[in-house]
Amino acid sequence: MYEILQKVNSPADVKKLNASELELLAAEIREALFNRLTQKGGHFGPNFGTVEAEIALHYVFLSPQDKIVFDVSHQSYAHKIITGRKNGYIDNAKLNENSGYTNPDESEHDFFNVGHTSTSISLASGLAKARDLAHEKENIIAFIGDGSLSGGEALEALNYAGSELRSNFIVIVNDNEMSIAENHGGIYKNLEALRLSNGNANPNFFKALGFDYLYEPNGNDIQSLIQTFQKVKDIDHPVVVHIHTLKGKGYPFAEKNKEAWHWCAPFDRASGKPTVDWGNGESYESITANYLLEKAKKDPKLLVITPAMPASVGLSPAIRQALGSQYADVGIAEEQAIAMASGAAKRGAKPVVVTNATFLQRTYDQMAQDTAINNNPIAVILNYSSFNTLTDVTHLGIYINSIYGNIPNVRVLAPTNKAEYLSMVEYAIEQQDHPTIVLIPGNGVIEDSRAADSDYAQVRFKTEQAGEKVAIIALGDFFQRGESLAKTIQEKLHFVPTLINPRFASDIDTQTLDNLKKNHSLVITLEDGIIDGGFGSKVATYLADSPLRVKVHGLEKKFYDRYNPEELLQSLGITSEGIAESIAGI
Amino acid sequence: MYEILQKVNSPADVKKLNASELELLAAEIREALFNRLTQKGGHFGPNFGTVEAEIALHYVFLSPQDKIVFDVSHQSYAHKIITGRKNGYIDNAKLNENSGYTNPDESEHDFFNVGHTSTSISLASGLAKARDLAHEKENIIAFIGDGSLSGGEALEALNYAGSELRSNFIVIVNDNEMSIAENHGGIYKNLEALRLSNGNANPNFFKALGFDYLYEPNGNDIQSLIQTFQKVKDIDHPVVVHIHTLKGKGYPFAEKNKEAWHWCAPFDRASGKPTVDWGNGESYESITANYLLEKAKKDPKLLVITPAMPASVGLSPAIRQALGSQYADVGIAEEQAIAMASGAAKRGAKPVVVTNATFLQRTYDQMAQDTAINNNPIAVILNYSSFNTLTDVTHLGIYINSIYGNIPNVRVLAPTNKAEYLSMVEYAIEQQDHPTIVLIPGNGVIEDSRAADSDYAQVRFKTEQAGEKVAIIALGDFFQRGESLAKTIQEKLHFVPTLINPRFASDIDTQTLDNLKKNHSLVITLEDGIIDGGFGSKVATYLADSPLRVKVHGLEKKFYDRYNPEELLQSLGITSEGIAESIAGI
Repeated sequence: MYEILQKVNSPADVKKLNASELELLAAEIREALFNRLTQKGGHFGPNFGTVEAEIALHYVFLSPQDKIVFDVSHQSYAHKIITGRKNGYIDNAKLNENSGYTNPDESEHDFFNVGHTSTSISLASGLAKARDLAHEKENIIAFIGDGSLSGGEALEALNYAGSELRSNFIVIVNDNEMSIAENHGGIYKNLEALRLSNGNANPNFFKALGFDYLYEPNGNDIQSLIQTFQKVKDIDHPVVVHIHTLKGKGYPFAEKNKEAWHWCAPFDRASGKPTVDWGNGESYESITANYLLEKAKKDPKLLVITPAMPASVGLSPAIRQALGSQYADVGIAEEQAIAMASGAAKRGAKPVVVTNATFLQRTYDQMAQDTAINNNPIAVILNYSSFNTLTDVTHLGIYINSIYGNIPNVRVLAPTNKAEYLSMVEYAIEQQDHPTIVLIPGNGVIEDSRAADSDYAQVRFKTEQAGEKVAIIALGDFFQRGESLAKTIQEKLHFVPTLINPRFASDIDTQTLDNLKKNHSLVITLEDGIIDGGFGSKVATYLADSPLRVKVHGLEKKFYDRYNPEELLQSLGITSEGIAESIAGI
Repeated sequence: MYEILQKVNSPADVKKLNASELELLAAEIREALFNRLTQKGGHFGPNFGTVEAEIALHYVFLSPQDKIVFDVSHQSYAHKIITGRKNGYIDNAKLNENSGYTNPDESEHDFFNVGHTSTSISLASGLAKARDLAHEKENIIAFIGDGSLSGGEALEALNYAGSELRSNFIVIVNDNEMSIAENHGGIYKNLEALRLSNGNANPNFFKALGFDYLYEPNGNDIQSLIQTFQKVKDIDHPVVVHIHTLKGKGYPFAEKNKEAWHWCAPFDRASGKPTVDWGNGESYESITANYLLEKAKKDPKLLVITPAMPASVGLSPAIRQALGSQYADVGIAEEQAIAMASGAAKRGAKPVVVTNATFLQRTYDQMAQDTAINNNPIAVILNYSSFNTLTDVTHLGIYINSIYGNIPNVRVLAPTNKAEYLSMVEYAIEQQDHPTIVLIPGNGVIEDSRAADSDYAQVRFKTEQAGEKVAIIALGDFFQRGESLAKTIQEKLHFVPTLINPRFASDIDTQTLDNLKKNHSLVITLEDGIIDGGFGSKVATYLADSPLRVKVHGLEKKFYDRYNPEELLQSLGITSEGIAESIAGI
């Protein structure tokens, strides 16, 4: 089945193949991609679109001396297959062996662990500058695409590299006409003009920044790509090679519906249907999308802004269309999303920014300076802040409270069930007090008997069960673990502990904490995030000078990678049994 | 003396003036600027260069209905004078009345509190989008210059606004051929080409992003500017107006030496010499500059990178020239600076990034993802992280530990005297372990008898005085306050407390903390930064479950503005006497 691929164990083996063998290799790599992705899921469209380009890169350049830096390294699967990691694709026993991104621990052909977009040009510019200082000559190649050009880091790097590097520097722009959703922004209009003119349109964005420029229309034709790459190999100045590829190439469903097939769950190849069932259909994504659509109909001031992540709250193309001018996708450009929201709030709109946790972290400064100093009341609805959702080291949301919980004026709200989530979203959009972030729960849609409040203007913890001796303060997604711990304590230690839903990840309710001193000797905090800079450390710091002792439970200040969430908690002793045992002598 | 200016109390008064009166107004505004700046210091060149442009803006547009958003709002002095705040410039009793930046609390003509660059276009795009949603029609104007175009936020905003806003949006690019230092990057080369071609060069960076474009060569001529602004008033699509101005216009010293006169201390107008003496000449800036120059001569791998802030470590034009290819100014582009450093470290260089605290905070993500996940050993030397240096709300470094102290793998080192500072800088550059940030002390160059270590690979606190009962852990700039507290305790409470120099702002030495339990009952932490997410909260969290009590002293999670440092500490009870009294019963 893998006639050619079985002979390819490194880039050197690719260089030995003739034209027809290279074609076969591309076909077999697509089979390998199907094998992994139908069973395990992953980034589909980006990888199917770049098979030929990555073969041609390894045919022309000499990796790892020549250094290829992948942007959004989710499009590096073919590269990984070529560079000795094919078993992660063709051997069903080894599908979990490799990460879905470039990873220097896996191979000398990978230079950086990269998750989000727009990083390749700046990282590669550092490689190039260090090469020049060392008076060496290898090719440095940044491979960027999938909407990544609109990110501030990429733009800063283009501005620098195009005019300040006076040596070999090759930026390959993989233009598949898409971000994850459709593209937004002037750069993409310029790419379109360049495509339509076979590279001759004027003005040319890249030339305006000082780059030399080449256009290759046949980005899925290996021989065309080889010829083009050979033209720029060993070039002595910065050049952009703009290649036109077809996202999802080789699978009709994916070619047709590029947005849906950007990423896929395990699926049936014949029908294109997912083979896993992820619950009863209600998700926080669909709940949020429906809420926003209804809200927008009632309130013309509502403005939904996203940095190219409509899917983070389930905004399908149909819903986006229905939102009309009340929807603004700014492209992959988080800084613009937050600062624009601040400006819109200042002018009387009700902006709500939707995205994922690790993408928002690009906006510390825009949240602090553009927004919080001005105290403009923007709302942010944030997905994937839970340790329980994305577990790749580059996609961990567990640092969010240590980032946004420590910016003055910013409120971070951590809901514990569906009713509370919706009340917090409504509050965040309507209030005129503060920038307010609502964390989408990562432990499923929980509907229980606890009613939600509607006003979160004052920082007030909610005591769900008044007890004695031990107070459990269980934040957000870990509230249910707090409930479970309270039960275990009651059963095993024979007293009723206090159980508190703090609701605010960013602030403490000192009155409630002071009241605990009367008939408690221990406070236990539980949170779904790192301890350093987090919620529990605020409680501990406040109480450190009192007789009340505090045990803070959360994750360590570490980079975790592809862990099993429950096993991780067990290893940290964060289980009802473990904690109850540790306080048995109370 | 202020014949015209005395009649100008609002923009409406400017509109009544004829051409020669407008010229007189410009001259009088320059006199007013001299009056403030010779006595108080401030941003000189940016304001002297934009007097005519700001007069013309207020002549043509109708502020505050039409909304002018200033980038790096340090160039808004003429605007402030025109909009009712002239007393802050001409009345010597009121020079401290106004901030040096736009400030909505001061005037309805200011829309945002803005300190750093590159924010105006994104903020203004939010105003424009909200205006469109409200079906209104006012002009929205972003006024950007002084090297701000290279910042990621500005570039993201240009990409969005040029193609996605289909309504009135005016970006005025104030091109004075400078950042604070000389400009770097392709955009500035393009601006130069446009200047030299009277706006006709091709490619045109702004047109490539979808903007309409106009060039006005006479950016210091009021009538030319009025005519140009009138052309774009009420325009129905996004336009860039590129105006060419002379930084420092009207003062020969400043016109000649633009970099030195970007900002000025109080000075004598006739000679241009500063009228304040800031110490004996040795500063951490000069110490660092000399160190880096010597280091670069010895080690060809050393690479100094700065996002347009060479002055943060005293890199004069002569030193920059001597550093040669070992110096890279990437323009105002902090993301690029950090990610490029990560790439350079990966390729074997020894990169050291130099900048100021509030500018570095744009790089949370680049430090976490591009650098720390990859554990590339870059060094950062950071100025102005102390509460004792810059006190404008937009320039506070007191949040740095809560940002960078909570990123896994990142080490933040806080030196307590000159010898320790130099040893930490040397270590940060030579080590191959971690991204390492060294905070430049903000309490003067202290040389005392304490010798420094040379290796900071292991997190070890340094016990400077072993004592009993009370342990004082005094971080960085607050170490001397710890020394003073230790003396006060000895004098007033008659025992010798332990005094610890923790050295690491980002980590705790659990062994030292555990050892304290033997003969101490109280730990006091002192730090020059906010408590939330800071160093003391790590100590308190670790010890919260032990009998040792902890008092954490630091600043509150607040935005302070233009405070007196010592008064602020007094109000927070952070004085030797206050703390000693509070523990009298120990």
